[in-house]
Amino acid sequence: MNLKQHFEVMLPEIETELQRQAARLDATNLRPFHEMLTYHMGWTGEGAGKEATGKRIRPLTVLLAAASAGGDWKPALPAAAAVELVHNFSLVHDDVQDNSPKRRGRPTVWTKWGVPMAINVGDALFVIAFQSIMDLSRAYPAESVVRASVILQEACLSLTRGQYLDMAYEKRHDLSLEDYWQMVGGKTSALLSACIHIGTLLGGAKDAEQEAYRQFGYHLGLAFQAQDDILGIWGDEAVTGKSTASDLVEGKNSLPVLFGLDRQGQFAKRWKRGPITASEVAEVASLLEREGAKTYAEEIAERETEIALGFLRQANPRGAAGEAMLDLANMLLKRSQ
Amino acid sequence: MNLKQHFEVMLPEIETELQRQAARLDATNLRPFHEMLTYHMGWTGEGAGKEATGKRIRPLTVLLAAASAGGDWKPALPAAAAVELVHNFSLVHDDVQDNSPKRRGRPTVWTKWGVPMAINVGDALFVIAFQSIMDLSRAYPAESVVRASVILQEACLSLTRGQYLDMAYEKRHDLSLEDYWQMVGGKTSALLSACIHIGTLLGGAKDAEQEAYRQFGYHLGLAFQAQDDILGIWGDEAVTGKSTASDLVEGKNSLPVLFGLDRQGQFAKRWKRGPITASEVAEVASLLEREGAKTYAEEIAERETEIALGFLRQANPRGAAGEAMLDLANMLLKRSQ
Repeated sequence: MNLKQHFEVMLPEIETELQRQAARLDATNLRPFHEMLTYHMGWTGEGAGKEATGKRIRPLTVLLAAASAGGDWKPALPAAAAVELVHNFSLVHDDVQDNSPKRRGRPTVWTKWGVPMAINVGDALFVIAFQSIMDLSRAYPAESVVRASVILQEACLSLTRGQYLDMAYEKRHDLSLEDYWQMVGGKTSALLSACIHIGTLLGGAKDAEQEAYRQFGYHLGLAFQAQDDILGIWGDEAVTGKSTASDLVEGKNSLPVLFGLDRQGQFAKRWKRGPITASEVAEVASLLEREGAKTYAEEIAERETEIALGFLRQANPRGAAGEAMLDLANMLLKRSQ
Repeated sequence: MNLKQHFEVMLPEIETELQRQAARLDATNLRPFHEMLTYHMGWTGEGAGKEATGKRIRPLTVLLAAASAGGDWKPALPAAAAVELVHNFSLVHDDVQDNSPKRRGRPTVWTKWGVPMAINVGDALFVIAFQSIMDLSRAYPAESVVRASVILQEACLSLTRGQYLDMAYEKRHDLSLEDYWQMVGGKTSALLSACIHIGTLLGGAKDAEQEAYRQFGYHLGLAFQAQDDILGIWGDEAVTGKSTASDLVEGKNSLPVLFGLDRQGQFAKRWKRGPITASEVAEVASLLEREGAKTYAEEIAERETEIALGFLRQANPRGAAGEAMLDLANMLLKRSQ
């Protein structure tokens, strides 16, 4: 099986497991509460469907990791559900925190039901995520369940650390590259790394292999974020100037922006003067590119990718799932396979 | 040792364990984040101290339960910390949801640092609560750790259910008594019941005993809430009319109010006309009493107390801790000992 075939087999099972977990809130007098949750997950309401659910990349990595470590992926499904629920808990709260009206093209939970309800929906998703992990008890010894929980919880605490740094630096121009890596490490890498770590733990990998997989996940996350930051400024959608899709308009402290600020050149001057309008986007992006920010970010993405792939080789992934894992890494990094 | 002596020995240990758990966020570049958490817990900032920490009733019940089931309470400290962290997570989010400016006489986290930061502080407290439970691994077999987690998580999900019902019914006058019990069951009883259940599990109680203790905790919570609802309308602070301490002014859907609405008399008419002002408080409270609401709520409190104490006898609590547990129940229910 190649990556696509793995996806086709695993995705419906992930969705079923997620719905089974979410059903914990399915009771007569809780129906509207349950509906807020199923709406956010992309199953119900206006615009429900594939576009609304997101790609379920994180649960897929859990299952691929379990298989590529030599284990069976099906009993790991509750862990796959857990990481996706954690991811979605953070999205619901993020949308409140960032005041974002839309998510995947649909109104966010807080715009539909208000901030207090949205906070509660996020909290419920968070609890259900931890309940899902406990469901691993059906197939794994209690020691593994505890270990998987500890790994997921450490990633969750890193999420709150990254979120804190992100919010704290939102209106500041003195974010260092070191702060950037800690923020990205918390917000993107920690959970991806935990997905792969938990998967390989459940798949029966030895400690040294688990550690290599974990590092693979962490650097994959960093490389993915650097890549995403590049696309956020120079990607097709970002440079059209017609939308506010550009990270420059959003004022995001991304890797190229931090490089530009560090250079203290023309870009830094413009950035500190205030928000960049949609009509300036192409010009500022090109200025930033001339100052070397794009090349810098590409080098970082390339470096982190190489580190990630080095750890993956060291982890000794097995069989078709192992190859699919490599394909997934390449897909995430937008590299040709 | 009597109850007071138990408190004196246990409280400092609870505080130490809580601070040890909270230290997970103590890092140079996270200092302000850690401070938001220690401020809320009552340890730092203006007004820090005993008044600000709250009574730590929930962790005390965990430890008393462990001891009264015949076990040692010290190794159960991580569980005690966990339930207190869960309680405080819910307070931080509640304050945002209810738009409450003050908590225990001090400005709430969201008024000091804003809603987005407060959401994140609550999330961090929640994660650390689950991390604390996992620390039970130091002293208990993995099976017990998993079991304790499952109990705590079920209580947390009940909290979100209760919170949903509370918010959903805030501006409605058709809350039934059945809804009330489910709301109170979720918001007050579920966590108290989980505290006692987890304590007795760790203390080594047999399954049937655990179940009796769990039921004791649940009905104790219901009795406590009924009692609290009575004090919220007819307690000393509520009837002075000088403050907004009365549940009548807050428009709270409490047990006596629901009884009054159900009667469809003079009180119901007045209640539906809109908010009750501080100057009306004494009059409306007395109207509600004449319609039988106080007697009704007292009967309910008495009934739930009897049920709770019946289960406690059935649970067969042992030694001085067992007696202290009975004293604690009486203290919570404001009964003479």
